[in-house]
Amino acid sequence: METADLSHHISRRFNEDLERVRTKVLAMGGFVEAQLAKALTSLIEGDSSLGESVALDDLQVNGMEVLIDEECSRILATRSPAAGDLRVIVAIIKTITDLERIGDEGEKIGYIASRLATMERPENKYREIKHLGRIVSEMVHDALDAFARMDAEGALRVARQDRVVDEEYEAIHRQCITFMMEDPRAIRRALDVMWVVRSLERAHRGSRQEHLRIRDLHGARQGCAPHQARGRRTRPAGSGAD
Amino acid sequence: METADLSHHISRRFNEDLERVRTKVLAMGGFVEAQLAKALTSLIEGDSSLGESVALDDLQVNGMEVLIDEECSRILATRSPAAGDLRVIVAIIKTITDLERIGDEGEKIGYIASRLATMERPENKYREIKHLGRIVSEMVHDALDAFARMDAEGALRVARQDRVVDEEYEAIHRQCITFMMEDPRAIRRALDVMWVVRSLERAHRGSRQEHLRIRDLHGARQGCAPHQARGRRTRPAGSGAD
Repeated sequence: METADLSHHISRRFNEDLERVRTKVLAMGGFVEAQLAKALTSLIEGDSSLGESVALDDLQVNGMEVLIDEECSRILATRSPAAGDLRVIVAIIKTITDLERIGDEGEKIGYIASRLATMERPENKYREIKHLGRIVSEMVHDALDAFARMDAEGALRVARQDRVVDEEYEAIHRQCITFMMEDPRAIRRALDVMWVVRSLERAHRGSRQEHLRIRDLHGARQGCAPHQARGRRTRPAGSGAD
Repeated sequence: METADLSHHISRRFNEDLERVRTKVLAMGGFVEAQLAKALTSLIEGDSSLGESVALDDLQVNGMEVLIDEECSRILATRSPAAGDLRVIVAIIKTITDLERIGDEGEKIGYIASRLATMERPENKYREIKHLGRIVSEMVHDALDAFARMDAEGALRVARQDRVVDEEYEAIHRQCITFMMEDPRAIRRALDVMWVVRSLERAHRGSRQEHLRIRDLHGARQGCAPHQARGRRTRPAGSGAD
């Protein structure tokens, strides 16, 4: 009986720790989402100072990554979690690396946006980027949502969005080449658009990685500890975080 | 006395496990290095089939990542390492993510190389890419070397190479824009060159991440367990692995 009590006690402590670290991951995710949304806004609205401030957000993202990393190491050291719980911690360590890289892309888009803001905007006001940006932002949001709920179904659904992103990416790419061929003065701007689109594609791939990880985790843990099923994430896309 | 024996026993087991996993990380690193080197060769020599085969190497890299990941989780679960040793395992988990991403860039360069092989090669035979490629390959190699020796000094030295890579990157970028402006027919090829250069820059950043991680680890563990100081990596850059 005493042993059962002790193991219950350890498990409760671990669950509390895990809950705390998951909250921090979701806050980091919310911040990265907001960063990406602001980067796209700065591009579409030609807001140079917003672009610059987004690029600087990266320091905060890095700081969050370091803190969560330390927290995970502390949990591993003090709770010595069993195999299943361990996988969750390792998945978290990898997830924050993905998030940090999505943040990197937000930073890049911010820099390019602040540069593009000094040039004349195209007639369509980067409509194609707006569209692709919305798809990718939704994917990043859904990945975090799936993370919060440890929901493999959602993860699978989102993975199917790959084809849409690829098609959009290819279409914009071809369009940029056409612009460049027609008017050499458009080359620099078209290249910047291409970099933005590539960054979005990378952000998309980062969130896909996250999805795959959740799916694997779900497969490995089906029927495991209940702390997996808790907590739906309700914060809307791009709404920022503490 | 018995307790000391037991802790010595656990520590020996952990060291053996760690040694085994480090060997696997170095093998994975060697494979990724070779992949990058082959991708560059396929580009420079216009070898389409080599480019394609390099692109397919990615599956193997992913497989290595999964195996090392599992091994790390097993070590964490069975040895419950203390704080310092734990940091090493977490650093390894992150390092293989970096390696996998460097492999991704090798894959991309391979695809582009196989496409470029069908076009006429430029007079200078991609000399600029050859040069930048050599710098980046050396960095990737040095990062693995620093990992093998847990050598913070080497890591710092390599981090200083950043400026050289940035300058090369910018120079090639400007040159490509000039080519594009002078001759619209050169646009597609110039874009492919730009993607390759960007991939190299990303591979460079991946290896820099690795360096920073080793430096942090070194700072945190100075004076710790001797398994940190062992094993110099002697395999030359791009020599492949099992």
